[in-house]
Amino acid sequence: MKVIELNESVTESNDRDAQELSSQLRGRGILLVNLMSSPGSGKTTLLKRIAADFAGSPKMAVLEADIASDVDAVRMEEAGVTSVQAHTDGMCHMDAGMTRRGLEAMDLEGVDIVFLENVGNLICPAEFATGAQKNMMILSVPEGDDKPLKYPLMFSESDALVITKTDALPYFDFDIRTCEERAKKLNPGLRIFPVSAKAGDGMKELEEWLKAAVTEIKREK
Amino acid sequence: MKVIELNESVTESNDRDAQELSSQLRGRGILLVNLMSSPGSGKTTLLKRIAADFAGSPKMAVLEADIASDVDAVRMEEAGVTSVQAHTDGMCHMDAGMTRRGLEAMDLEGVDIVFLENVGNLICPAEFATGAQKNMMILSVPEGDDKPLKYPLMFSESDALVITKTDALPYFDFDIRTCEERAKKLNPGLRIFPVSAKAGDGMKELEEWLKAAVTEIKREK
Repeated sequence: MKVIELNESVTESNDRDAQELSSQLRGRGILLVNLMSSPGSGKTTLLKRIAADFAGSPKMAVLEADIASDVDAVRMEEAGVTSVQAHTDGMCHMDAGMTRRGLEAMDLEGVDIVFLENVGNLICPAEFATGAQKNMMILSVPEGDDKPLKYPLMFSESDALVITKTDALPYFDFDIRTCEERAKKLNPGLRIFPVSAKAGDGMKELEEWLKAAVTEIKREK
Repeated sequence: MKVIELNESVTESNDRDAQELSSQLRGRGILLVNLMSSPGSGKTTLLKRIAADFAGSPKMAVLEADIASDVDAVRMEEAGVTSVQAHTDGMCHMDAGMTRRGLEAMDLEGVDIVFLENVGNLICPAEFATGAQKNMMILSVPEGDDKPLKYPLMFSESDALVITKTDALPYFDFDIRTCEERAKKLNPGLRIFPVSAKAGDGMKELEEWLKAAVTEIKREK
C-alpha cells in the first residue's frame, strides 16, 4: 500500500482531461467507478463486501482519496485488495489530473475495475469530472431521506445511487420510497440500490450492475 | 421565514471581516455559534431540541445555510424558532461576508444566541472564519469514530464537539473513548458532549455550556 501526495491539477480543461483518461482506460478494458458520498456513509465497508463477493473476478483495485490518514487503504489491504492512498493536499475533491496520478501509482496489471473512493463530501466532488465511466453515489440511512433536496447536483451527476446501512432502517426516520422519488425527480435514469453491506441484502443486484458495466467496457475496448 | 441568495464575498481579507463581525455582535450582546458537520449528522434535530429546552431563554435564532432547498428553515419555523434560509450559490461553505448578509436579513431584536447552521461538509467550512465566537462541530455515531483521523482541521478549529445520535450506539461500531482520544490529540482544549437529541441524554451539559458562553458575551459587551 502506497501513500502519495497530490495537489490540484494546473490543467485548465479538466473536462477534456477527464474524457482523455476515460478513453485511455476503456482502451485497456478497465472500468473506473467514482464513489462519492458524505463522510462516514460506509464506502469502505461497501467496497470490502464487494471485494469478498467478487473474489477476484472481476479483479478490482481501489484508489483511496483523503485529506489525511491512510485508514481506508489499510482496511482495503487487510481485505486483500490492491489499494493506493492519495492525499489531496487539503483539496475537497478529486479531479481528472489527480486521478490520473493516483492510477499511475497503482499496479493495474489484470485489473478489470478500479473504484475511486472520492473525498467524503456531497458538494465539491460532483463539480469535477474524474475520468470515471460511472459515477456512483452512496447515501446512508442515518443521513436522512431529504438529501436529494439539499444536494441536488450529486444526484443529477450520478449513474447509480446506493442506499447503504438499510439494516439501520428500524432506528431512523428514513423512507426509501420518498428518497427514491426525490432522487428520480432530479435524475429519471438513476439506478437505485438499497443495500446492507453488513447483512448482504441487495448486494447481488448492485454487483450484477457493476459486472455488466465491466462487460460493456471490455466489449467497447 | 425568508430565503436569500448569497454568493462568495469579494473581500480579500475574510479573517479581518470575521473579527469585525464578531466584535460587532459582541457589542450587541449576541453570541454567534458556527455549527459544522457532515450532511445528515442531526444539526437541525439538535437545534430543535435546544430550542424546546431553552423555551425562549436565552432567546435563539437560526441562520440556515444550504446550497438548495428550505427544508431546514421550515423545520425550525415549525419549532417556533426565528429562522432565515441562506442559499450559498453552489458554495460549499459560509464566509464572514455571507454570514453578515444572512444576519442582516434577520430580526435580531432581543436575540441572545444565533446558530449558523453551516453547509453540510467536514472540509471547506473549517477553512473559513464566519465571525462566530464559538465553533461547534457535530459528529454523529453512524459516521464512525475514525473521523478525527480523516478530517483533522475541523476538529482543531472547533471549541466543542457534539457527538450526536448516541441512542444508535448499540447498532454501530463507534467507540466514544477512542473518538475522544483522537479528537483531544488534535485539540486538547476541545469540549466534548455526547448527546441523544431524541432521548435527551447529555443535552443538559451542552445547554449549560452554551448558556455560560452567552453570559460571557454579555459580560464583555
